[in-house]
Amino acid sequence: MGLILYERLCGDDRRPSPYCWRARLALAHKGLKPEYRPVKFTERDRVAFSGQAKVPVLADSDRVVSDSWDIACYLEDTYPDAPSLFDGAGGRALARFISHWTDNSLQKALSPILAPYMLAAVHPDDRDYYRQTREARYGESLQHLAARRALYLEALHPVLEPLRQHLAESSFICGERPAYADYLAFAEFQWARSVCDQDILAPEDSTLRAWRHCMLDLFDGLARSVPAFDSAA
Amino acid sequence: MGLILYERLCGDDRRPSPYCWRARLALAHKGLKPEYRPVKFTERDRVAFSGQAKVPVLADSDRVVSDSWDIACYLEDTYPDAPSLFDGAGGRALARFISHWTDNSLQKALSPILAPYMLAAVHPDDRDYYRQTREARYGESLQHLAARRALYLEALHPVLEPLRQHLAESSFICGERPAYADYLAFAEFQWARSVCDQDILAPEDSTLRAWRHCMLDLFDGLARSVPAFDSAA
Repeated sequence: MGLILYERLCGDDRRPSPYCWRARLALAHKGLKPEYRPVKFTERDRVAFSGQAKVPVLADSDRVVSDSWDIACYLEDTYPDAPSLFDGAGGRALARFISHWTDNSLQKALSPILAPYMLAAVHPDDRDYYRQTREARYGESLQHLAARRALYLEALHPVLEPLRQHLAESSFICGERPAYADYLAFAEFQWARSVCDQDILAPEDSTLRAWRHCMLDLFDGLARSVPAFDSAA
Repeated sequence: MGLILYERLCGDDRRPSPYCWRARLALAHKGLKPEYRPVKFTERDRVAFSGQAKVPVLADSDRVVSDSWDIACYLEDTYPDAPSLFDGAGGRALARFISHWTDNSLQKALSPILAPYMLAAVHPDDRDYYRQTREARYGESLQHLAARRALYLEALHPVLEPLRQHLAESSFICGERPAYADYLAFAEFQWARSVCDQDILAPEDSTLRAWRHCMLDLFDGLARSVPAFDSAA
């Protein structure tokens, strides 16, 4: 038994989950090609063997690792001869900070924009589940979120400013070559690209667009190869 | 001639500048003790020898370095046998991202809270200069900013969330020991402590308070040793 990545399946075979893209790209960085096993939101029992209910879950022969951060650390420690995801102990510590920034600032600003699109993108079997859980989380209907899209896009712009300024100086977040912190942030853009028919970046946001373009090209266009609504991105 | 750090002087010998604290703490991390030369806002010509007008400026015998990030990189490269500020190439790249996050998210949320306090804290000779430049920057009077203090404090809370979550898992931003990314973020709290008579952290914000306490203890209490309004912090 080789490497298996359990990841979120949406409708039309889409794979928008940013957490699963963190794992997909970390595996590719290490030169590893897993078998992908798609899991719907309402198939939580399919990953029960991992002791929890969320994806991604990585099975590497008899080892099972859940949580995208733990998967990255597992790959770094288990495959030390492959290219490093962190480039040193300092890089690992600060990549963890950037994962918290991605979750609590970037994704928090992005998710009210994308949640209504996700409702259309999830597998038909998951639609009721998705609507109920997300409307409970936001305390209002996804339709109300969609009506405020322009406001949320405006609020996203300053949240991206640290990334914009960093990438104005450096080809990638991690320096001259991409590594795990790039995958953390890019996975959010990949989520947007997978479900949303309009670009979340303005045409003049050239620094972020150029970086995103390079990220889509990585690993023989791995992130570009999956179905997307926003084919221009 | 040894090491000289030109830094901002405010009234009552206060040194609140967060950029200068980045340099102060980076020097201490390397075990270096500079001579401090205080410079008022209206004494820009005193650092003209550096080819620009801002502090901090570090003079190390015949080498002159301005800009706090360039000072950190200079110290890391010039004193490689002293403890590392970045702990590897990955750590240096991501510390730069965190410096952009500090400037564009943390400081941006903090500065409308602190600017009115700074007006009282700057050297009397600088008061008119400070008021004019800051009111031009914000497009309104510092008195108006002060009237909205509670709103700005509320808006600061979610900006701190990545830091809060990271420090719930890790003693320092950089892991088990503090390093440059800790100094980047802590320097903003030191700015607050130097000018503001009320704590910007709520009493229940225990994770951030505990980290700040440890940071104040570093290097024989270097950051604790300077005059502060908020002696409880």
